[in-house]
Amino acid sequence: MLGKMFRVSLLGESHGKAVGVLIEGCPPGLKMSEEDIDEMLALRSPGSIRFTSRRREPDKAEIMSGVFKGYTTGAPILILIYNKDVDSSPYEKMRFKPRPGHADYTAYVKYRGFNDYRGGGMFSGRLTAGLVAAGAVAKKILSLEGIEVYAYLREVGGVKSTVRNVEELKKAYESPFYCPDLDAVEKFREVLVDAAWAGDSVGGVVEGVAVNVPVGLGEPPIDTLEGDLAKALFAIPAAKGVEFGSGFKLAEMRGSEANDEYVVRNGRIVTLTNNSGGILGGISNGMPIVVRVAFKPTPSISRRQRTVDLRTMEETWIRVEGRHDVCIAIRAVPVVDAVMSIVLADHLLRWYAWTGIRY
Amino acid sequence: MLGKMFRVSLLGESHGKAVGVLIEGCPPGLKMSEEDIDEMLALRSPGSIRFTSRRREPDKAEIMSGVFKGYTTGAPILILIYNKDVDSSPYEKMRFKPRPGHADYTAYVKYRGFNDYRGGGMFSGRLTAGLVAAGAVAKKILSLEGIEVYAYLREVGGVKSTVRNVEELKKAYESPFYCPDLDAVEKFREVLVDAAWAGDSVGGVVEGVAVNVPVGLGEPPIDTLEGDLAKALFAIPAAKGVEFGSGFKLAEMRGSEANDEYVVRNGRIVTLTNNSGGILGGISNGMPIVVRVAFKPTPSISRRQRTVDLRTMEETWIRVEGRHDVCIAIRAVPVVDAVMSIVLADHLLRWYAWTGIRY
Amino acid sequence: MLGKMFRVSLLGESHGKAVGVLIEGCPPGLKMSEEDIDEMLALRSPGSIRFTSRRREPDKAEIMSGVFKGYTTGAPILILIYNKDVDSSPYEKMRFKPRPGHADYTAYVKYRGFNDYRGGGMFSGRLTAGLVAAGAVAKKILSLEGIEVYAYLREVGGVKSTVRNVEELKKAYESPFYCPDLDAVEKFREVLVDAAWAGDSVGGVVEGVAVNVPVGLGEPPIDTLEGDLAKALFAIPAAKGVEFGSGFKLAEMRGSEANDEYVVRNGRIVTLTNNSGGILGGISNGMPIVVRVAFKPTPSISRRQRTVDLRTMEETWIRVEGRHDVCIAIRAVPVVDAVMSIVLADHLLRWYAWTGIRY
Amino acid sequence: MLGKMFRVSLLGESHGKAVGVLIEGCPPGLKMSEEDIDEMLALRSPGSIRFTSRRREPDKAEIMSGVFKGYTTGAPILILIYNKDVDSSPYEKMRFKPRPGHADYTAYVKYRGFNDYRGGGMFSGRLTAGLVAAGAVAKKILSLEGIEVYAYLREVGGVKSTVRNVEELKKAYESPFYCPDLDAVEKFREVLVDAAWAGDSVGGVVEGVAVNVPVGLGEPPIDTLEGDLAKALFAIPAAKGVEFGSGFKLAEMRGSEANDEYVVRNGRIVTLTNNSGGILGGISNGMPIVVRVAFKPTPSISRRQRTVDLRTMEETWIRVEGRHDVCIAIRAVPVVDAVMSIVLADHLLRWYAWTGIRY
Repeated sequence: MLGKMFRVSLLGESHGKAVGVLIEGCPPGLKMSEEDIDEMLALRSPGSIRFTSRRREPDKAEIMSGVFKGYTTGAPILILIYNKDVDSSPYEKMRFKPRPGHADYTAYVKYRGFNDYRGGGMFSGRLTAGLVAAGAVAKKILSLEGIEVYAYLREVGGVKSTVRNVEELKKAYESPFYCPDLDAVEKFREVLVDAAWAGDSVGGVVEGVAVNVPVGLGEPPIDTLEGDLAKALFAIPAAKGVEFGSGFKLAEMRGSEANDEYVVRNGRIVTLTNNSGGILGGISNGMPIVVRVAFKPTPSISRRQRTVDLRTMEETWIRVEGRHDVCIAIRAVPVVDAVMSIVLADHLLRWYAWTGIRY
Repeated sequence: MLGKMFRVSLLGESHGKAVGVLIEGCPPGLKMSEEDIDEMLALRSPGSIRFTSRRREPDKAEIMSGVFKGYTTGAPILILIYNKDVDSSPYEKMRFKPRPGHADYTAYVKYRGFNDYRGGGMFSGRLTAGLVAAGAVAKKILSLEGIEVYAYLREVGGVKSTVRNVEELKKAYESPFYCPDLDAVEKFREVLVDAAWAGDSVGGVVEGVAVNVPVGLGEPPIDTLEGDLAKALFAIPAAKGVEFGSGFKLAEMRGSEANDEYVVRNGRIVTLTNNSGGILGGISNGMPIVVRVAFKPTPSISRRQRTVDLRTMEETWIRVEGRHDVCIAIRAVPVVDAVMSIVLADHLLRWYAWTGIRY
Repeated sequence: MLGKMFRVSLLGESHGKAVGVLIEGCPPGLKMSEEDIDEMLALRSPGSIRFTSRRREPDKAEIMSGVFKGYTTGAPILILIYNKDVDSSPYEKMRFKPRPGHADYTAYVKYRGFNDYRGGGMFSGRLTAGLVAAGAVAKKILSLEGIEVYAYLREVGGVKSTVRNVEELKKAYESPFYCPDLDAVEKFREVLVDAAWAGDSVGGVVEGVAVNVPVGLGEPPIDTLEGDLAKALFAIPAAKGVEFGSGFKLAEMRGSEANDEYVVRNGRIVTLTNNSGGILGGISNGMPIVVRVAFKPTPSISRRQRTVDLRTMEETWIRVEGRHDVCIAIRAVPVVDAVMSIVLADHLLRWYAWTGIRY
Repeated sequence: MLGKMFRVSLLGESHGKAVGVLIEGCPPGLKMSEEDIDEMLALRSPGSIRFTSRRREPDKAEIMSGVFKGYTTGAPILILIYNKDVDSSPYEKMRFKPRPGHADYTAYVKYRGFNDYRGGGMFSGRLTAGLVAAGAVAKKILSLEGIEVYAYLREVGGVKSTVRNVEELKKAYESPFYCPDLDAVEKFREVLVDAAWAGDSVGGVVEGVAVNVPVGLGEPPIDTLEGDLAKALFAIPAAKGVEFGSGFKLAEMRGSEANDEYVVRNGRIVTLTNNSGGILGGISNGMPIVVRVAFKPTPSISRRQRTVDLRTMEETWIRVEGRHDVCIAIRAVPVVDAVMSIVLADHLLRWYAWTGIRY
């Protein structure tokens, strides 16, 4: 479960009946429809983006509880996204041959062979639909404070894009590969085509940005905003790194460069730079919260790889067939956006728990 | 609080009476003395390392509860490290002038000016003594399974070190700057001297490695091993990035490079490479768990920086006096080690919760 | 959410699409079918018991995730019980007239009027179907240790029944009103008939008993077995009191009567009496765990009662129409059974977390 | 740990260095001194009350963190109460002879013989000092909303007292045995003298009452106000039953008696009776919250009792020497008060998390 006040639990398997999410602690009175969720789900749908796998029909959310007459009720919200268009037969064949880079082997051992291995089961990227659905709900809470969360494809296979301001960020979802830097997009395309031709895949980086976050979110010493964001972001399959602000770059910098100096602008205290990514001491400082998530390349590739037969313990080979995203980071863009929204909504409610006090 | 079964809460302030840690859920019967803890505390003590700030006396742990006749009892363990040698006067002067890069401003707003600002209060690196003490306890649990955790200084100001094997890792704490790569150490020294002369500071990267971790630790879809490690690591002040295995490098790689292929060695399934850092699908795969944490440069620098007077909202200047670590990452090495140990101990107990079942 | 390792979250509304339960942390490899759950659901079904309300069709569980090829997978288990046979129109009329004894008024205020008021919404006894479903899963875990949980109707409207041993307990679900004491059953019937004729309802007490519980379950000082059982039992609507062993009777006893003396029987330490209800210091002592739950009378009665119109703040009257259980405690019997099973399964897993350690 | 936003963890042993409490999530800016805590600690001090055991010196709280210049800072608050005046030798003798009614046997098994058995270790009533200290902090929060919590000795050995209104409640702590009903006090005294003469002990019931609680505290379906109160109250040693409002009496009532009808008084909706104890559907309804806790007789009695030698498994006898409370319920009065305050403070903060929202 993610969160303390706005609490999110995932469920479902790729080739089971459904994937979904249970949200507990969502305040009542938020206008909410299945269309609101579908809209955000469509963003992670493979249909519209090239270089992503092709399950054709768009996902449809079904709200099973917690919404009544178009508003959240305060009761637990269950949202299901039913599965369809699934052919599980390839997975039968591979069942005892763990695919490199996938969770097949760890799942087999941890779950004693009882895990649903079809389509990666619980480890499928498809479970992120639940995160996205919860993100759509979280955004309703955030909007009450004017908090906005954005994400875009920052990097593909080593090629970086640049986004300069919120106006550009807002265009991400209308841009190819969810990247508003069209020069970078051209290079991304090359990288993706090359990898696709080679039967290979490629990694990427997604950047998420939240603006208008009030000063004071985060509960150190343990429940820092960075910590809670990172924990949640690592629930996205294939995420292998998380950094805030200038992140790993800070390790190469000097204090005089890295420190964000304070000035006053329009009567508010702001920093001249934002190397801290809007978080100091685990608490939001009012500047944009900036986080980057590194995604490894899609592990499913059609090239031959070494593996071991789990029954015989003999070394063997595997070639993962079927259509798969060349770069999983593309579809992770709305997921990073959603996960940030979930964590910020939770911390916003926790912030109200203190600021609501009448001293 | 960190953890579910092995649970860790931090407390204390830099210039208050003490810092410390409360550990709940620690199993009984583990041999434990204050010396065991002091030994690990000494590693983060500034006395022995150059380029770190100089509080002279070594820290001494006092076990207040949960240990009896030299063994853990199963009751909550409170460990205190009393403060001494503290001059709080400089902080009075700076009280309303937030130091760039520190938590002064966010703490002031969140805690409505009631926070203990002396020495950074709860945000001081000194609170990591509690983490280190808990790590010393966690290591007792891990040793029952033969799990070993190591850490070393991987990078300072852009200069990288290389550690090739566990034998080298074991030498980290006896090496200058906790880095067993002596060529790198020379370069680190230069970077540190330069920064020190300039009245400046510099960032760094710490790498933690855990070996002999059984396959199966981690509880996806939400409580992944990466997520729980990252959340805990971000409780270390100045941590701004966390990555596993090849981390952000994976974003530049192709699947065929990134996937760790399976082979059989000595009757066990292992991977030829370890780009995944020992974690697949949020679950340990039996390979070394490798995590890197980026630390920003020490924010306290003697150079003049812009800030704002919180009472008058007027822009002004600040120069942080006193002796401070030139590179905070050095002393973070045993902290990363401790935090990894805490999280792994918790997940090991959670793993027993399932493997203890008699089917 | 109930539990730490075996975690249970409820969802749904009485007249919404479904009620259900999400179970996280359930170990893999437990044989599980929808029929297993339906069997336990049938026990709380009103069809078979007189003096309970009449929704006709039996509940059918649908396992949405976490079970594959007839076994639990280790992934989150979502179980839904779809609603049918619902006429919500009476609730529209009463919407602003809170029914005494129901949650109408508190829900209206807390949820700002956005709560689903149809059939009591989230506060309906129907949500206990989720608890019962989770209990059916929990029992699979308990059976691995030979732990058995029973419950029966102990008391109706002041009339007490007596159950002398486990053999009698086992007959509870085949007995009228889930009470194996047939003399008491006759008196229960009279009490129920009288109340029904008077358009009134009556309260009752359910006793739950768990046998073969190993010594050592419970995590004091805070997470006592009594505390965790009580918290979970109060999630059953209409529960207003929980007591263990001789419970409130102990307040009238002397220590020499109340203390359970130790003897050895068949090589095991047992107590001669069980006033403590199998729990000492918050930890199971190996004797049967005995808990009693007091249920208030069904608040829905056809007699005229005073209430206030929430729109006008004018005092008015209400008469709750429709068919309702005369005594809600009857159908609460399998719910108490299930809730005990859930809490014991969670604590059993937590117990394994320590006993699994190889010292 | 108790609570979500206001979080309380206990620590310490009866004959160790100290007992204490760690409070996380306490808002900043609350005026707080050690004297505030000592005042409430004095209420559970045995010195002032007859028929309670005699450790002479009053307890003194030491605030170790989280309070600065007389105000809470928002950081974790550690409060220690150091132990003194302890003779542990009697416990050495009894070590392998579990005292009936105590946690000796369960602790011995659960903690594999490593538990601190001196003075009952972690199971001592002395740990309630931590609860009382946390209660003193919680009351600071409650007072901001005008919420007041009271408790009194309701019953001793079957003899009941009556308290009619808040004015009487306020006199509890100045009354003998913390019972403002002086007629009952006389009878209590007789019961206590009789038991004391017989080398025996006696049980009792404590009632807690909270007034001015806003409508809307509690988070069903799982985190009901009853459930969270009950869980916390069972952390008090010797508590064996908890009931709300008319509690177990409700099981004997009819709905027409039990339902609390609504009327308007001074423009507010109130109920004519308060059988529900101020909680409906797990949510506070604005009426006084009334809870009763049954305490078993002090298990330490000087009469001979049967037990088993844990080393030899031979049946033997034990006589518990030393001075002990004749009725543990007396000193439990301020503890029940404190525990209610803790839980209500936590739920008040959680309530702010929703009511703080600006729709």
